[in-house]
Amino acid sequence: MDKITRHPERSMLDRTKLDAVLDAAAVGTLATVVDGMPWAVPMLYARDGDRIILHGSTGAGALRQVASGAPAALCVALLDGIVVADNLFNSSANYRSAVVRGHLTALTREESADALNALSDALIPGRSAEVRCHTKKELAATLTIALPISAGGWTVKVRDAPPSEPDGDGGAWAGVVPLRTVPGEPIPAPWVDQHTTVPASVRRLAHGAP
Amino acid sequence: MDKITRHPERSMLDRTKLDAVLDAAAVGTLATVVDGMPWAVPMLYARDGDRIILHGSTGAGALRQVASGAPAALCVALLDGIVVADNLFNSSANYRSAVVRGHLTALTREESADALNALSDALIPGRSAEVRCHTKKELAATLTIALPISAGGWTVKVRDAPPSEPDGDGGAWAGVVPLRTVPGEPIPAPWVDQHTTVPASVRRLAHGAP
Repeated sequence: MDKITRHPERSMLDRTKLDAVLDAAAVGTLATVVDGMPWAVPMLYARDGDRIILHGSTGAGALRQVASGAPAALCVALLDGIVVADNLFNSSANYRSAVVRGHLTALTREESADALNALSDALIPGRSAEVRCHTKKELAATLTIALPISAGGWTVKVRDAPPSEPDGDGGAWAGVVPLRTVPGEPIPAPWVDQHTTVPASVRRLAHGAP
Repeated sequence: MDKITRHPERSMLDRTKLDAVLDAAAVGTLATVVDGMPWAVPMLYARDGDRIILHGSTGAGALRQVASGAPAALCVALLDGIVVADNLFNSSANYRSAVVRGHLTALTREESADALNALSDALIPGRSAEVRCHTKKELAATLTIALPISAGGWTVKVRDAPPSEPDGDGGAWAGVVPLRTVPGEPIPAPWVDQHTTVPASVRRLAHGAP
């Protein structure tokens, strides 16, 4: 995360690792340049094969401006642990991160439906098959964007280790406080009857059950 | 997160809310422009009053290049829940996000020590008082950067709500799968004797105990 050039071993050229990091997160930061200035916004995303799918409203001016051809970077980071050394300098974080660089493309309405299903199924596996199809009106209101994952256009970094060696006698405690994200019990919307069956996709998301 | 311009109520002008979001996360994406292209990297950060503290290695060329005066944006996002509507269009996410825009400043070595303590104490409250001071060599190897939080230079957005009203008869399940990040039991480094006392800061971080 920090000290990037000093830890080249944390950079990997393994596409499998990139996909694993991208697939483990659901929110990334889309960064681009607007009028010469940095522009960054958090977005839900999903990997769909060799591309990243993003979406927003066709009413979002800045997003529409960058959607067609702008150079962009999607940055994803998962904080997996706080690494506690016997001094602050060697304290660090365990993390998985990825940056995908490329040019954005706005998808056509015809292309959007499948891409939006893929996005939804990445967030809530199996959900797209449980609900009705997108309407024309919905597709017209949705800006669906793809960022290609191309050779040389990405970086993946992972730190998953104890602190580096102690500078003292090793007698002080050092180690890692692991962090993980866990789902809670699904909370029905106020109008939902308590006897309504919770969809299988939601049960899987909340409980990890197949 | 998405559909930004269509939900102006999610943008807030409340500095207290900005601070709460910034203080709840530890990793953000620093975005800037290098040679006209977007440059984005995940970084540990902490808010220290009216500034964001970041750090890296003085050996990190790109970071050093942007550290002095470059316009930058730090983007922070916490995913709090998956919002499941009875259709995909109204499905969404509950989240807290912030973007702080401004010009980066590299701190002097003298300024760095306090800033690095603040960064460490934001990640592991109370830790800086448990360990030795930074050495001159460590400070020389560390690039400490500040991003000011200035009026008009930030945005905070929060969604914390059930899905929007159903488009059907409301008979289908809809609701939220909450997500939260939890610490696990501290894992001692391989060389640490099992009888070594775990520092108070680490116990608080792992167990939330005072």
